[in-house]
Amino acid sequence: MFARFDKLNPPQFLAVVFGLAILVGSVLLWLPIASTEPVRYIDALFTATSATTVTGLVVVDTGTVFTRFGQVVIMALIKLGGLGLMSFAVLIVLALGKRLGLRERLLIQQSFNQPSLGGIIRLVKVLLIFSFSMELFATFILALRWVPEYGLAEGLFQSLFHAISAFNNAGFSLWSDSLTRYIGDPVVNLIITILFITGGLGFTVVYDLVKTKHMKRLALHSKIMLVGTLAINVVAMLMFFLLERGNPATLGALTWGEQFWATYFQAVTPRTAGFNTLDFGAMEPATITFMLLLMFIGAGSASTGGGIKVTTFVVIVLAVVTYLRGARESVAFSRAIKADIVIRALAIVVISLSVVFVSIFVLSMVETAPYLTIVFEAFSAFGTVGLSMGITDSLTDTGKMVLMWLMFLGRLGPVSIAFALAKASHKNVRYPKEDVFTG
Amino acid sequence: MFARFDKLNPPQFLAVVFGLAILVGSVLLWLPIASTEPVRYIDALFTATSATTVTGLVVVDTGTVFTRFGQVVIMALIKLGGLGLMSFAVLIVLALGKRLGLRERLLIQQSFNQPSLGGIIRLVKVLLIFSFSMELFATFILALRWVPEYGLAEGLFQSLFHAISAFNNAGFSLWSDSLTRYIGDPVVNLIITILFITGGLGFTVVYDLVKTKHMKRLALHSKIMLVGTLAINVVAMLMFFLLERGNPATLGALTWGEQFWATYFQAVTPRTAGFNTLDFGAMEPATITFMLLLMFIGAGSASTGGGIKVTTFVVIVLAVVTYLRGARESVAFSRAIKADIVIRALAIVVISLSVVFVSIFVLSMVETAPYLTIVFEAFSAFGTVGLSMGITDSLTDTGKMVLMWLMFLGRLGPVSIAFALAKASHKNVRYPKEDVFTG
Ligand SMILES: [K+]
Ligand SMILES: [K+]
Repeated sequence: MFARFDKLNPPQFLAVVFGLAILVGSVLLWLPIASTEPVRYIDALFTATSATTVTGLVVVDTGTVFTRFGQVVIMALIKLGGLGLMSFAVLIVLALGKRLGLRERLLIQQSFNQPSLGGIIRLVKVLLIFSFSMELFATFILALRWVPEYGLAEGLFQSLFHAISAFNNAGFSLWSDSLTRYIGDPVVNLIITILFITGGLGFTVVYDLVKTKHMKRLALHSKIMLVGTLAINVVAMLMFFLLERGNPATLGALTWGEQFWATYFQAVTPRTAGFNTLDFGAMEPATITFMLLLMFIGAGSASTGGGIKVTTFVVIVLAVVTYLRGARESVAFSRAIKADIVIRALAIVVISLSVVFVSIFVLSMVETAPYLTIVFEAFSAFGTVGLSMGITDSLTDTGKMVLMWLMFLGRLGPVSIAFALAKASHKNVRYPKEDVFTG
Repeated sequence: MFARFDKLNPPQFLAVVFGLAILVGSVLLWLPIASTEPVRYIDALFTATSATTVTGLVVVDTGTVFTRFGQVVIMALIKLGGLGLMSFAVLIVLALGKRLGLRERLLIQQSFNQPSLGGIIRLVKVLLIFSFSMELFATFILALRWVPEYGLAEGLFQSLFHAISAFNNAGFSLWSDSLTRYIGDPVVNLIITILFITGGLGFTVVYDLVKTKHMKRLALHSKIMLVGTLAINVVAMLMFFLLERGNPATLGALTWGEQFWATYFQAVTPRTAGFNTLDFGAMEPATITFMLLLMFIGAGSASTGGGIKVTTFVVIVLAVVTYLRGARESVAFSRAIKADIVIRALAIVVISLSVVFVSIFVLSMVETAPYLTIVFEAFSAFGTVGLSMGITDSLTDTGKMVLMWLMFLGRLGPVSIAFALAKASHKNVRYPKEDVFTG
C-alpha cells in the first residue's frame, strides 16, 4: 500500500489524498445525523469538495440544513484541506529543490533558512503551531463579540468555525447571507480579513517575515507577495468604491462607516477568501467583470488561497512590460527573473484560462442562468474563491459536477503545473537570478 | 515630411497611414452625397474604421443608407486596408530580417525565396497581381450568379463589392442580413469562402505554395498554417453542427443541403471573415462561447485576417503540451520551436486578452445589452471579425469608441507586438530551429 503510494509523484499523491478526504467527507455529510433534512448525495459530495478545496461554494445552507455534526465535518475538511495544502506546498517546494541544481536548491533553502531534514520537520511543526495559534487567537476575539450575542456554546462554535474558515480561505459561513449582518462591524471585518489575508500570503512569506528582521533581506518571493498584495488590494478598493457607490443595492444605501468597511471587505475577499458582506448578485456588471480578474489572480503560493497566484500575475505584468519595451530581461527588486519562470507563469495562465473556458462552454450548454452569473461561478470555483451571484444551489447536476471538477483542478492545478514545469531546462544567465514560485 | 516619417518605426508608420486613411474616409462618408439620410460623424468614423481595419461591424446599413458613392468609398478603404496590411506585413518581415542575425535573415529570405531588393519589389508586384486577379476572377463568377438576378450594373457592382470584401476578410455586405439569402447557394458559399480562406492564409503561405512544388519542402510557417487551418475548420464544423442542429432558429429549420452549407460557412467565417448566412443573435450560448475562441485565434500572419493568428495558437498548444509532458523543447514537423517564439506567442495572448478584458469592462459599464452579446462584440472587434449578435447599431457613443479602439488595436496589435518582441535575445540552440511568425 505504502509502496504503491511511493510511486506517485507529489501532485498525484496530493490528488489521491484530497480525493479520499472528499469521498469520506461526502459519505459523512450524507449520513442522516449530518443534516436536518435529506440531502442528495451529489449535494453532500459538492459540499465535501467545496470544503476540502477550501472554496466555499454551497448548494445546501451550512447553518440550517447541516446539523452541528455536519458542521463539524465541514470544519474538519476545511482544516484538513488548508493544512494539507500548506504543508504539502512546503514539501513540494523542498521536493522541487531535490530535482534542481545546486544553485536553485540553495535559493530555496535560503528562503526557508532550513538546510537539513531536521529543519524540514521543524518547519512543518512551526506551520502547525502557527495555524493553530492564529485560529485560536481569532476564535477568542470573535467570541468576545459573538458569545454575548449567541450564548456561550453557540457563540464559541460560531467563532471557531468562522476563524478556521477564514484562516484557511474557505469562505464557509454558518449564515446563509455570509457576513452581511456584520457589514459595519469593525471587529468582525478586521479579524476575518486579517485571518484570510495572512492565510493567503502563504506560509513561506510569513515564515520569511518572522525570520528576517530587515525588509531588504526578504526573499524576492516575499517582497513580490507583500508589495503585490498591497497594490492589488488598494486598486481593488478604489475600483470597487467608484463602481458601486451609486448602486442603491450595494454601497449606495449605506452610511459612510459601512461604506468604508464594505469597500475594504469586498475588495480583499475575491482573492480568494469568499466571504461577503454585500450581495454579489446585486453588483454592477463592470464590478463583477473586475472581480473576475481578482478571482483569477488569487492569493499566494504555498497558501490556503487559490488562483494563478499573485507572483504569477506580477511576473506576467513585468514580463509583458519588459517585452513591450524591448528590454532583455524582466527585473524585480534588482533581481532578474529567469526566462523559465516567465514561460512557466505564462503557461499557467494559458492552461488556467483553457480550463475555465471549457467549463464555461459546458455550463453555457446545460445552465439557463444569465451568462455573467455562469462566468462568475466558473472563475469563483477555479480560483477556489467561493463567491457567487446566487445560482449555485439552482444549478443542474451536470453544472454541479463541472464546478466540482473546477474546484478540484483549481486546488491541485497550479501546484501540479509548477511541479511539471520544474523539469524545464536552465540556461546560462548573465544577471543574478532568483526564483519566484508561480504555482 | 518624409524625413519625419522616416523616423517612425514600421508599426508607428502603419498606425499613421491607417489613421489618415480612416480620417479621410470618415469625412468622405460623412458628405451628403455618401448617404441617403444624414449620418452622424461618429457613425461615419465607425464605418471608415471598420472598413479600413477590414472588420465589418456596421452601425449604418451599407446597402440602404450609403449611396453608390459611399459604397465605393467603403470598398476603396477595404482594398487599401487589406492590401496595405499584406504588403506592410511583407515589408515588416523583411525589416525584421535586417534586425536579426544572419541565420534568421537567411530563414526569412528562404521562406520568400527573395534574397535581394529587386526580389522584394518583385514580391510586392506579385502580391498586387495576385490580389487583383483573385478579386477579378471571383467577381466574374459571382456576376454569373448575380447579373441575371440584379441586372448588369447592379449585379456587377454587387459581385465586385463582395469579392473585394471577401478576399480582404472585411465582412461588409450590401445586404443588411449579410449572405443569409444565399444560405444554400453552392456558388456563393464556395466563392466567398475560398476568397476569405485564401486571403486569411496569408500571402507568404500562398507564395510559398506556388513556389514550392513539394509539400515537404514548404516553410514551417506554411505547414503550420495549412494543417492548423484545416484542423480548426474541421473541428469548428463538427462543433457547430452538434451544437446548433437542434436549434429551430438556426440549423433546425433547414434542409439537409442548407444545413451542410450553413455549417461549413458558419464554421469558417469566425476566423475572421465576418460574413454570415445564419443569425448569430439566435445561436446557443455554447456555440457563441466556442465562436469566441475561433474569433480570438483568427487567421494567418501577413494576411487580411486578424486575431492572435493560427501559428500563435499552434505554438501555444505545442508549448503547453511540451511543458505538461516535461519535455525540453516544442517540436512541430521535426523542427524545434525557439523559446523566444514561445514567449512571444504567450505574450501576444496575454496582451490581447488584457486589451479585450479592459474593453469588456468599459462596455459593461456603458451598455445595457446582455453580457454575452457585449463579450461577443468585443472579441469580434479585436479579431477584426465583424460578426455581431445584433447590438452594434444600438451601442452608446462610448461603446462605439471602445469598438473603434479595439478594431484599430486588433489590426495593428499583433504585428506591432511581434515587431517589438523581435528585439528579444537569441540563445544557443541544440536542435535545428526555424521561425514561425506569430504576429
Ligand atoms: K475560498
Ligand atoms: K472581418
